[in-house]
Amino acid sequence: MINAYAAKEKGGEFVPYQYDPGTLGDHEVEIEVHSCGICHSDLSMWQNEWGMTQYPFVGGHEVAGKVLAKGKHVKHLELGDKVGLGWHKGYCNVCDLCIGGDHNLCPEQEGTIIGNHGGFADKVRAKDTSVIKIPEGLDFNAVGPLLCGGVTVFNPLMQYDITPTSRVAVIGIGGLGHLALQFANAWGCEVTAFTSESKMEEAKEMGAHHSLNSREDSEIEKAAGSFDLIISTVNVDMNWDVVIKTLRPKGKLHFVGLLEAPLEISAAPMIMAQNSLSGSPVGSPSTLRKMLDFAARHNIQPVTETYKMSEINEAFERLESGNARYRVVLERD
Amino acid sequence: MINAYAAKEKGGEFVPYQYDPGTLGDHEVEIEVHSCGICHSDLSMWQNEWGMTQYPFVGGHEVAGKVLAKGKHVKHLELGDKVGLGWHKGYCNVCDLCIGGDHNLCPEQEGTIIGNHGGFADKVRAKDTSVIKIPEGLDFNAVGPLLCGGVTVFNPLMQYDITPTSRVAVIGIGGLGHLALQFANAWGCEVTAFTSESKMEEAKEMGAHHSLNSREDSEIEKAAGSFDLIISTVNVDMNWDVVIKTLRPKGKLHFVGLLEAPLEISAAPMIMAQNSLSGSPVGSPSTLRKMLDFAARHNIQPVTETYKMSEINEAFERLESGNARYRVVLERD
Repeated sequence: MINAYAAKEKGGEFVPYQYDPGTLGDHEVEIEVHSCGICHSDLSMWQNEWGMTQYPFVGGHEVAGKVLAKGKHVKHLELGDKVGLGWHKGYCNVCDLCIGGDHNLCPEQEGTIIGNHGGFADKVRAKDTSVIKIPEGLDFNAVGPLLCGGVTVFNPLMQYDITPTSRVAVIGIGGLGHLALQFANAWGCEVTAFTSESKMEEAKEMGAHHSLNSREDSEIEKAAGSFDLIISTVNVDMNWDVVIKTLRPKGKLHFVGLLEAPLEISAAPMIMAQNSLSGSPVGSPSTLRKMLDFAARHNIQPVTETYKMSEINEAFERLESGNARYRVVLERD
Repeated sequence: MINAYAAKEKGGEFVPYQYDPGTLGDHEVEIEVHSCGICHSDLSMWQNEWGMTQYPFVGGHEVAGKVLAKGKHVKHLELGDKVGLGWHKGYCNVCDLCIGGDHNLCPEQEGTIIGNHGGFADKVRAKDTSVIKIPEGLDFNAVGPLLCGGVTVFNPLMQYDITPTSRVAVIGIGGLGHLALQFANAWGCEVTAFTSESKMEEAKEMGAHHSLNSREDSEIEKAAGSFDLIISTVNVDMNWDVVIKTLRPKGKLHFVGLLEAPLEISAAPMIMAQNSLSGSPVGSPSTLRKMLDFAARHNIQPVTETYKMSEINEAFERLESGNARYRVVLERD
């Protein structure tokens, strides 16, 4: 039996919940959960904002733990290995996207918390490809938030061939953005934070060489023609035409924050400067492995607030308040 | 003296116009014009649609001709060489963009017909870097339209690392689109034309493997998940969210047609499928050279209607009617 915390209804209190996961599949791994981050998408799923939540809902897709059991076809892990699990708990492994290394775009990807029970529990199961070995040197509690929030901002550096000579800006310094600053700095880039006035100094401590007040279009305008890549982590609308003007020719504005309002963009300036807009979700297993290695080598860690798993309701309340700095992690009792 | 045709006012009749171009600069080339295409942007400039036209206006930026004179620092050309000239007549050659090969994005780029007199004349002058030698095997009258319309649709194939295994769609089969079909086909790609019902068959003759009726969203929807690159050549608004759904994961929707209405795009599907939107203007001198070589090797030619230079007013009327198939070229009398 697995001992989890589940919400029985949309936005309901998390209460202890036991379930029988059945026989372990040949390609499955059972992970003993050491800690599990709470991501903003756990909040969205808990509230059924995307209309695909099944109740009882067991969230948690930023898992760090140890291999407790494995199916007979699991090759790359041994019992007791330290491992992590992110947004995806499985892939088809055979479609053109998986075969090409882009498992995270697989049309049959399985969500760790979509129709499945996640990591707010003592144990969680996932398929082998999605279970990532944790390299030496990473703090157990720090790994979880890297597996979803971290890889989401690391992925664009990989996908768009960003080099250490690039100038990178990050919009929004929160759960995603504070990791993006660290990654971009360690990547060797010149880094600028777009943030509120109150976080401008803190952003510099986390890797930004420059900060600008993103609440003022006039401040953004001063950075015209500056950036090769802008990673937008916010879910609020901005004046994107003004933001695009801060790109250098051939620069890219990349969205990882889910915006509800449609983007409104003038085509002509984008054409003249050969700019692009793009977006991406989490990362592939290959990117996850590289990201963890890179984080270990460069000592990149999320800033976290830690709660015991049994304090899950308090922890959700804290994340919901918007005041958490910057990721909330649940640790086993 | 140079004998040109000029409009004295916005949308005015073209009349014979003589001007003295002064002493030839050390880096300048004087081209004897053999023929000159009329591009849609000549119409826009003639009508001062972009607010930057100076009158008397001598248009013409798709020039094919011969080197008649050259300044003492012009190295790559000899008198009598067959040469072409496109949208740009000069670059600074020293900024980061020029030094990196992206002269077409140079902030000090000089337009052939912006504040300068273009190729609707017996002679035209330009700076050395912008004057492109025409390779053997290209028909003189066919070269002009390749230098602006052609390179505009060839450039994305170069810039976005499109390979012969890619599936490419072209939206709008007109002056730009009919060249895009030929280039993408010769590039080795699987090619689809988005066009009106009346041009679906013709598009196949020009290189499309498939055609679809782009006036019907329901027809576009049937192509969901198909394309690695879509080149949009139209200047009319479409339901871009429906178009984006025809991209494969990691696919790109690329704009070369200048749209007046802002693009309205939903961010979430773009993020989930790692799609991107982009745009680009003409091409660099390096891309122009490669494009002409490629066109010569693959026998890529615009479909043209040819008028004598003295019939310029009739030719403009024809292009303005929207019925020209597909590029209009003026040939010296």
